[in-house]
Amino acid sequence: MKIGIYGYGNLGRGVELAISQNADMELVGVFTRRAPEAVKTATGAPVFSATSLSDFENKIDVLILCGGSATDLPKMTPSLACEFNVIDSFDTHASIPAHFAATDKAAKEGGHIALISSGWDPGLFSIARLYASSVLPQGKGYTFWGRGISQGHSDAIRRIEGVLDARQYTVPIDEALAAVRSGSMPELTTREKHRRECYVVAEEGADLVRIEREIKEMPNYFADYDTSVTFISLDELKAKHSGMPHGGSVLHSGRTGADGEHAHTVEFALTLDSNPEFTGSVLVAYARAIWRMKERGAVGCKTVFDVAPADLSPLSPEDLRAHML
Amino acid sequence: MKIGIYGYGNLGRGVELAISQNADMELVGVFTRRAPEAVKTATGAPVFSATSLSDFENKIDVLILCGGSATDLPKMTPSLACEFNVIDSFDTHASIPAHFAATDKAAKEGGHIALISSGWDPGLFSIARLYASSVLPQGKGYTFWGRGISQGHSDAIRRIEGVLDARQYTVPIDEALAAVRSGSMPELTTREKHRRECYVVAEEGADLVRIEREIKEMPNYFADYDTSVTFISLDELKAKHSGMPHGGSVLHSGRTGADGEHAHTVEFALTLDSNPEFTGSVLVAYARAIWRMKERGAVGCKTVFDVAPADLSPLSPEDLRAHML
Repeated sequence: MKIGIYGYGNLGRGVELAISQNADMELVGVFTRRAPEAVKTATGAPVFSATSLSDFENKIDVLILCGGSATDLPKMTPSLACEFNVIDSFDTHASIPAHFAATDKAAKEGGHIALISSGWDPGLFSIARLYASSVLPQGKGYTFWGRGISQGHSDAIRRIEGVLDARQYTVPIDEALAAVRSGSMPELTTREKHRRECYVVAEEGADLVRIEREIKEMPNYFADYDTSVTFISLDELKAKHSGMPHGGSVLHSGRTGADGEHAHTVEFALTLDSNPEFTGSVLVAYARAIWRMKERGAVGCKTVFDVAPADLSPLSPEDLRAHML
Repeated sequence: MKIGIYGYGNLGRGVELAISQNADMELVGVFTRRAPEAVKTATGAPVFSATSLSDFENKIDVLILCGGSATDLPKMTPSLACEFNVIDSFDTHASIPAHFAATDKAAKEGGHIALISSGWDPGLFSIARLYASSVLPQGKGYTFWGRGISQGHSDAIRRIEGVLDARQYTVPIDEALAAVRSGSMPELTTREKHRRECYVVAEEGADLVRIEREIKEMPNYFADYDTSVTFISLDELKAKHSGMPHGGSVLHSGRTGADGEHAHTVEFALTLDSNPEFTGSVLVAYARAIWRMKERGAVGCKTVFDVAPADLSPLSPEDLRAHML
């Protein structure tokens, strides 16, 4: 399988590294909107200008789009789905139906397949929610995120006057996790599920009291959570908070029996040292899947819900049945 | 969807109760090889003789087979796949390829669809192994079972002379689970992963020392494990050990990065008050899926690996994308 990567930030690099772990894949190159000579890839993969992409129309089986969900992907995915089989990690949950519709139309016009919103949430977490709620319809689902870096919340802090840099960790609250795992199906408020830990580097002489207050009172981002703010030096930020760990748990508990007398709990949990490298690994497995689906004649936009598990694996159906079932 | 249940033990009853939780399903009836009047169903569903099954050929969309893997299903599933769309929970892992081949041939001859080895292991656990190993190919997978009742091990104890009744719990060892969750990818022996707890009711005057020794030295079943044997009264067995709890965890840890510097751990865990009711709930969700696949033209034998998650849910693709992705 011949893969192209479009966009080379943390996620593009994660995809590149994941491809190197899969013997059935070949990385044709990285396509960038920057000057190609300014981009140095992790594995030495060649870098091309995004403007040269149409020269590769028959040389790439699946193009993995590594742009951002806020501004890049809503235009990028439908536009490229006309020319290539594409896959993205679009993660603005509320806009998925519109993104699906635009991509589906473009992919069908071009006779290509596209898969949107792959990764772990949306992605593997969505699948866990779907399996569990289908098996236990009289139940209740929960998603916890973290402990991990939220890029959006870190950015929000950086926009405050007097802040040089910041990292925000989303942290699930142990008591809430334990209550859900017990099968008691608790009702939990936003504040009861997660807390937010902020590590902030302030400019010299900045008003720390004001910065802390602005963070804690920020609507949507922090006001509904118990938030801690710790001011640290730039050196400490770089030394202790430069990684991109993340993870979380999807939990679903349900009841069965003549009178609902039996409780069951399903949990799918991820602990990730590197969010972009894991997300990249998921995208690569789904690239394999959509290429196989395309070879069987599928066109149009798909999601992870439409992909049979077998298509993700390099193993044959026979091997899967003999060794993994 | 019109469902039939073939065989009415604990699993058949679990399927019956699961159907009552799904508004898009109707239970046509339970088919038994016993005298129908001797079978009383949990929800009042009608009971028919297994010999009358051919009268229902056009009245049942999917027949859920609730026989045992050891002797019933290897014949039952291929034989019934000629006449009906069928689903079973065949769980003898080593015999899956042969069972698949026989069922595939019969289903194709009859123009039907069949799904074998559904449930949680094989079943949801298999899927978890497949997703995780496809995403993290440079990794290592582990499956832990329990704490839960093993029917096979309980039966093995009951066959010992002087034993009236027994229950055996398979128990994962906490230290092993913790080591795997840490991402260290340990090599673990059989003894290091699970221990076995046996609760035994002996005949009056039986040689307890001999019984305990015969249990602990039994090859395959107990000799490779640390096994505890506790003799209790029949009353205590009924009071404390009459449930059928089970569960376990599929864990997979893998590494990514230029030098494998980042560790990731994926865990899928089940905690089940009733093994047969949960397994029945899985079978019912897969009955929905194969009926949809059949309506799209699929025939032959499938496994859970071949079923796209969306087909399990009563929700429409649009609802799934809007609310669960």
